[in-house]
Amino acid sequence: MNSKNDFQIQMKQKVQEIEEILQEYLPKQRGYQSVIMEAMAYSLLAGGKRLRPMLMNETFRLFSGTSKALHPFMAAIEMIHTYSLVHDDLPAMDNDEYRRGRKTTHVVYGEDMGILAGDALLNYAFETAFKAFVTDPEDSLLIGRALRVLGKKAGIYGMIGGQVIDVKETGHQISKEILDTIYELKTAALIESSMMIGAILGGASEEEVRKVEKIASYVGIAFQIQDDILDVTSTEEVLGKPIHSDEKNEKTTYVTLMGVEEAGKVVEKLSNEAISLLHQLSGENEFLEQLLIQLIHRDR
Amino acid sequence: MNSKNDFQIQMKQKVQEIEEILQEYLPKQRGYQSVIMEAMAYSLLAGGKRLRPMLMNETFRLFSGTSKALHPFMAAIEMIHTYSLVHDDLPAMDNDEYRRGRKTTHVVYGEDMGILAGDALLNYAFETAFKAFVTDPEDSLLIGRALRVLGKKAGIYGMIGGQVIDVKETGHQISKEILDTIYELKTAALIESSMMIGAILGGASEEEVRKVEKIASYVGIAFQIQDDILDVTSTEEVLGKPIHSDEKNEKTTYVTLMGVEEAGKVVEKLSNEAISLLHQLSGENEFLEQLLIQLIHRDR
Repeated sequence: MNSKNDFQIQMKQKVQEIEEILQEYLPKQRGYQSVIMEAMAYSLLAGGKRLRPMLMNETFRLFSGTSKALHPFMAAIEMIHTYSLVHDDLPAMDNDEYRRGRKTTHVVYGEDMGILAGDALLNYAFETAFKAFVTDPEDSLLIGRALRVLGKKAGIYGMIGGQVIDVKETGHQISKEILDTIYELKTAALIESSMMIGAILGGASEEEVRKVEKIASYVGIAFQIQDDILDVTSTEEVLGKPIHSDEKNEKTTYVTLMGVEEAGKVVEKLSNEAISLLHQLSGENEFLEQLLIQLIHRDR
Repeated sequence: MNSKNDFQIQMKQKVQEIEEILQEYLPKQRGYQSVIMEAMAYSLLAGGKRLRPMLMNETFRLFSGTSKALHPFMAAIEMIHTYSLVHDDLPAMDNDEYRRGRKTTHVVYGEDMGILAGDALLNYAFETAFKAFVTDPEDSLLIGRALRVLGKKAGIYGMIGGQVIDVKETGHQISKEILDTIYELKTAALIESSMMIGAILGGASEEEVRKVEKIASYVGIAFQIQDDILDVTSTEEVLGKPIHSDEKNEKTTYVTLMGVEEAGKVVEKLSNEAISLLHQLSGENEFLEQLLIQLIHRDR
């Protein structure tokens, strides 16, 4: 068995472990409002790469973390990612009826419940993270630091801010500076918070957390540029979604700004910088390194 | 000057103090996403009674609290209340174009920004509450307790849950049990969290916090029943909004279930129980008592 196969097997196992954690932290108690618990589970358990909780866990392992606060935060970050997809798919936003081959949440449960399911997932993400105060009261200060990162990177100076600029700027040509801001906020911010929270709960110093933030930023931006490239170089069969969607939606991307070849060079540069920074950290996590490289150079 | 006038003057002053706190905690730093900061300020500074932060502050004073963590939580609870109004007003929900005589957020900024402004306010509410970890690190455990109450009462077992049932059950006759659940979750839960957080940060014992929760529950439900009554007994001029809206929207209310007179008796009973429980607590706060009575027996 070669090492690429090994990696894929480990990956599959880790995804399964994460899905068990998600199951564990989904709301159990029902009531007259049970439809919202169904809608939350429908959207949260729709598959996906589970990258954010995986990056959090692997960064935590890089620092040999032991805090019990990790699992609630792993569930929380995936709930935040999921709520953002549910709201992005709404008719007033991207108006998407399918995601990963399944009907989107508002198509199944109605537009009103789509809005409420997103709200519920965002609110429940924080509620879930707050459970760490109960399981790990002696780590309250660390949990507070992790919460501040989670809130900031998910909000108007993070993911929501990126979404706002993206919505505002779609349909006309934008500068590279604005495009970079969108990529940093819309895609990289949540990846940053995933890795930073893993580092914080793992016991990293403030300087180490700042380095981790930088690594995650490079990875997040490279990930997004690779998305731009695949949209013009891949096929619908491989990607599992329509190609040439950026052109259709009149989106400015790295490919429209500088062409496929130059965009590929930027991905390469960001990738090298991320890995070189990772090597500056004292811990070791072979799987994390492979994961970061694979994320950036993925073909779908 | 009689005592009713005194109360009104104090009330006005307290509203002003709260609005200064809201201003202080609104996001200052701008960027390409500045439109979302505008939409947040537009909806948050649209007037209103500021009941929730006021109840939090007065309960805090009842327990002679001194923690600096109070102000961020006062701002946070009003942001959560505001986001719920912004999302309720959306076309897919109540489709309201005006609130308190001003155009609703999505009418001014577009439906996509209405969704995002609500998301941003909810997320920023938690970010704001997290600031307490910085200003008051020695109170981290108390802050953790307060956050757990805030999250739960705003979420699927609180306000969002009530909204879900309300949306699901509108347009057909419902039982008193379901109606009570809607009132408890949709209206009372956030009032409970306001007073409970004031008590927690004020240093109340767990037993006192449970009593405060009960008082707030009575007040919240009575407040909502009074709303039902005013909808059939008041005038559009006094209320500042259309009357007979429940009939128009085919809503089951206490008035449709038992008539105005019996509904009034329930309000009276809940009011007495709330005040009697308040007197069981050791602290004293004359203004809080007047505020609770006035809330329940308001004529608009």
